[in-house]
Amino acid sequence: MAKLLKGKDVVEALNEKLSKDVEELKAKGITPTLGILRVGERPDDLSYERGALKRCEQVGVEVKVFALPEDVSEEDFFDTLDKLNNDITIHGILMFRPLPKHIDGEKARKLLCADKDVDGCTDLSLAGVFTNTNLGFAPCTAEAAMEILKFYDVALSGKKVAVIGRSLVIGRPVAMMLMHENATVTICHTKTVDVSTITKDADIVVVASGQMESVGADYLKEGQTVIDVGISWNDKKNKLCGDVIFDEAEPIVDAITPVPGGVGGVTTSILVKHVVESAQRVHI
Amino acid sequence: MAKLLKGKDVVEALNEKLSKDVEELKAKGITPTLGILRVGERPDDLSYERGALKRCEQVGVEVKVFALPEDVSEEDFFDTLDKLNNDITIHGILMFRPLPKHIDGEKARKLLCADKDVDGCTDLSLAGVFTNTNLGFAPCTAEAAMEILKFYDVALSGKKVAVIGRSLVIGRPVAMMLMHENATVTICHTKTVDVSTITKDADIVVVASGQMESVGADYLKEGQTVIDVGISWNDKKNKLCGDVIFDEAEPIVDAITPVPGGVGGVTTSILVKHVVESAQRVHI
Repeated sequence: MAKLLKGKDVVEALNEKLSKDVEELKAKGITPTLGILRVGERPDDLSYERGALKRCEQVGVEVKVFALPEDVSEEDFFDTLDKLNNDITIHGILMFRPLPKHIDGEKARKLLCADKDVDGCTDLSLAGVFTNTNLGFAPCTAEAAMEILKFYDVALSGKKVAVIGRSLVIGRPVAMMLMHENATVTICHTKTVDVSTITKDADIVVVASGQMESVGADYLKEGQTVIDVGISWNDKKNKLCGDVIFDEAEPIVDAITPVPGGVGGVTTSILVKHVVESAQRVHI
Repeated sequence: MAKLLKGKDVVEALNEKLSKDVEELKAKGITPTLGILRVGERPDDLSYERGALKRCEQVGVEVKVFALPEDVSEEDFFDTLDKLNNDITIHGILMFRPLPKHIDGEKARKLLCADKDVDGCTDLSLAGVFTNTNLGFAPCTAEAAMEILKFYDVALSGKKVAVIGRSLVIGRPVAMMLMHENATVTICHTKTVDVSTITKDADIVVVASGQMESVGADYLKEGQTVIDVGISWNDKKNKLCGDVIFDEAEPIVDAITPVPGGVGGVTTSILVKHVVESAQRVHI
């Protein structure tokens, strides 16, 4: 039976640490503040926003929501973004994307100030991940995976890691972050031949294929740690599932993140951590 | 006996293509121009500069050399960099580094305009390599390795590639560029355990360990393509050597770049290619 790498324990530890950091900042007169820039009311955005609000409240980070109507003019949108970029009382900006079609989303991404890019979507944030410097912030999901490995003391240096997926929000950044910790990383993707041989050869497998329950027993071996980044609704099973077939993987491997209750919840805490770090970078 | 992947043939093909591109630009009144910013007269810089001048001349790219004295003031240096950044008749800037200690090299790298960063050293250039977009230009050596593979029709999609080395000038960028071409890449480095097992399992091995003659017969198997990025003077053998033990590798593998005569010469051509591309991006 595998050890369950529960996100909850990681979140609790992060909350404790962040609460202290926020207290210290507030003692200096600084209130770490997240600005949320949302256009319209997409259910996914609202759901993530609720999670962020709750997590911020738990540690004392303030949130200002800038909710613009679905039909906001492009000019008004960019005025608001500009205001958020230049407001020194706002330390991090979460800009929900995709934006409505009449707003140039790529322009918005490029204009977002990297210093406040707590969601890790700007080019400079990604350059920072690639070069291992603090140019902005890492994509939250990638850092959440790293935070879980760190919290549960999973050794990385000299270990073989197979990453399945090469997206800019998780696969590619987590591969770089693992390499910065001296892991030997192989990035698998849709064109990779014989993925299961590669994953079976690894000490750690990070699954971010975006394909629900696509990694089963034949991809895994005993002794491994598995980080499952996927989360999708399974109509047949009538529950949330990851990219790993949990019931097949769990009896084989040493440790695995559950879905739900694994990476997902930690991601929001990383967003909050970035807001606090941003305030620290400016003020300490 | 392995096929020799000679740089010379790649350079000739590039020269032919670039000459045509330059002609087309000149017909529109545009002369692609490289600005070289050099402080002092370090032999390495001068040698690379001579190579660049020659290669530019061959295809009709103009070069303006801004040679500043070793003791130039920091202010004058940054004024010159600013001038180069803002001069619309200069399409690419080669800024020799490291700069003397009294000039902030990191500041210079950050101020260099990414649009003209034909040497691929700015954060935006590196972000472009990571995200596979044209934000600047790839580091020349990494692109030279890719150009050789392309010229000699080495299949990449679905192939396993082992990259030895994780520097920002070659290992990391070439790994990303190979992945963008759908190769399955493993990045090996000083903390990697059992590198030879990983390289033996690969179809293509890119060696940029920075350790002269560190990769021999026990790292290789038949059928492989080997790109040797290293170049160092071997005192014992009294000749230039790569990071691969050529005499051991050549009888085993299918194809290999010689040293000298492999990647090195192509690198300068990529620099010139970037200058032409920069002029095209602005004017076409």
